[in-house]
Amino acid sequence: MRIDVYPTIQDLEKEKLSGADCVVIDVLRMTSTAVNALYSGARRIKLAGDERVARELSLSENALLGGERGGVRLPGFAFGNSPLEYTREKVKGRDIVMTTTNGARAAEAAIGAKSVRLCSFINVRAVAESLKASDHIIILCAGTHDKFSLDDCLCAGALCAYLNADEANDLAVGMRLLFEAYKDDIPLVLRQTKHYRYLESIGFTDDLAFSLRINTHSCVPMMDEDGWFS
Amino acid sequence: MRIDVYPTIQDLEKEKLSGADCVVIDVLRMTSTAVNALYSGARRIKLAGDERVARELSLSENALLGGERGGVRLPGFAFGNSPLEYTREKVKGRDIVMTTTNGARAAEAAIGAKSVRLCSFINVRAVAESLKASDHIIILCAGTHDKFSLDDCLCAGALCAYLNADEANDLAVGMRLLFEAYKDDIPLVLRQTKHYRYLESIGFTDDLAFSLRINTHSCVPMMDEDGWFS
Repeated sequence: MRIDVYPTIQDLEKEKLSGADCVVIDVLRMTSTAVNALYSGARRIKLAGDERVARELSLSENALLGGERGGVRLPGFAFGNSPLEYTREKVKGRDIVMTTTNGARAAEAAIGAKSVRLCSFINVRAVAESLKASDHIIILCAGTHDKFSLDDCLCAGALCAYLNADEANDLAVGMRLLFEAYKDDIPLVLRQTKHYRYLESIGFTDDLAFSLRINTHSCVPMMDEDGWFS
Repeated sequence: MRIDVYPTIQDLEKEKLSGADCVVIDVLRMTSTAVNALYSGARRIKLAGDERVARELSLSENALLGGERGGVRLPGFAFGNSPLEYTREKVKGRDIVMTTTNGARAAEAAIGAKSVRLCSFINVRAVAESLKASDHIIILCAGTHDKFSLDDCLCAGALCAYLNADEANDLAVGMRLLFEAYKDDIPLVLRQTKHYRYLESIGFTDDLAFSLRINTHSCVPMMDEDGWFS
């Protein structure tokens, strides 16, 4: 097994995608939210980088709209990007279209891979278990505004630790070792980063605590041929 | 003090360069070699990304030629890129022009910063001490073929640990924590990386051991107005 971790969409080596299983990570908060929405009973989730596309899709597919810009819920949307909003009573049996600043674009960039999964700290062990037989895994971190984001890369390191591949690129090696050194206190690491502090400053402390717990969820969202995750 | 670490030249935010002190890192092996050549008595070193430019400079400046492509010494050059070749008897009082695959291009990309220093594990504490009064430090890692290279980024983490800045980008935070967790066994980390293994496979085991010792050298190469380091 080989693992390549890419810190942003710009770094992705697109020519390698078709031969690999791709895992998209946007810990704060898109993939944490999507995992929790499906866990809470949502039927399917589609991700769209563009807000207009998301609005059109929600109409044509009779889907609920979720998402944010700058961390804050968009006007007229049923949900923002907080995993805690997606309660069973609100999402059960429903399709959801989400648009977010970074993660939805990463999920779009992953189209063309052999398979596409969504991963966060809350489901990282389940994702690893579903990939045990893969030859080549590409971990695509959403990043924050096209820059390296430590929350996503540290989660990639967690996935690398569980998978224990024979071959890995340098970022995969570094992040696995970082995760192994600090796995008992992920918030200690991430409290030092800008995106964590930004979300804290706009009141999302509960989301941070929720998103940084490890292996609380066992579901593994996988993309189907039409781009829906279930 | 603020620190930004960039893993490759492509990631550098060039518009920030003019207001910052820049540190160029290419642990395996350019900056280790340059530091050791100056420590061994070389008068000045100039770095050129282009081989033809390096050859012309060495003629016009009466300088010795050093450098590599693919890790191996170029034809007609006095030195390759092994720090151990640059002995006192060969370099004392001489100017040296070096061209290397990754590091020399990074040094060229740093031109325009308030100051430019060369750093490796062997002189990292000395570099940190020379920067105590800086407001903004940009650490530019050479990378390997324009990709994240863990040797350079881990050394950037060492520099961040010694500097203990108030503000840092996410890569700086992650690499500082990684260095702090593994600082007593840097080779343990880097033996897992591709570039280390490549250099080992072509016979440079002694260079690896030399380049991964911490704080054996106290000199801090700084670029002058004409692009020479001394």
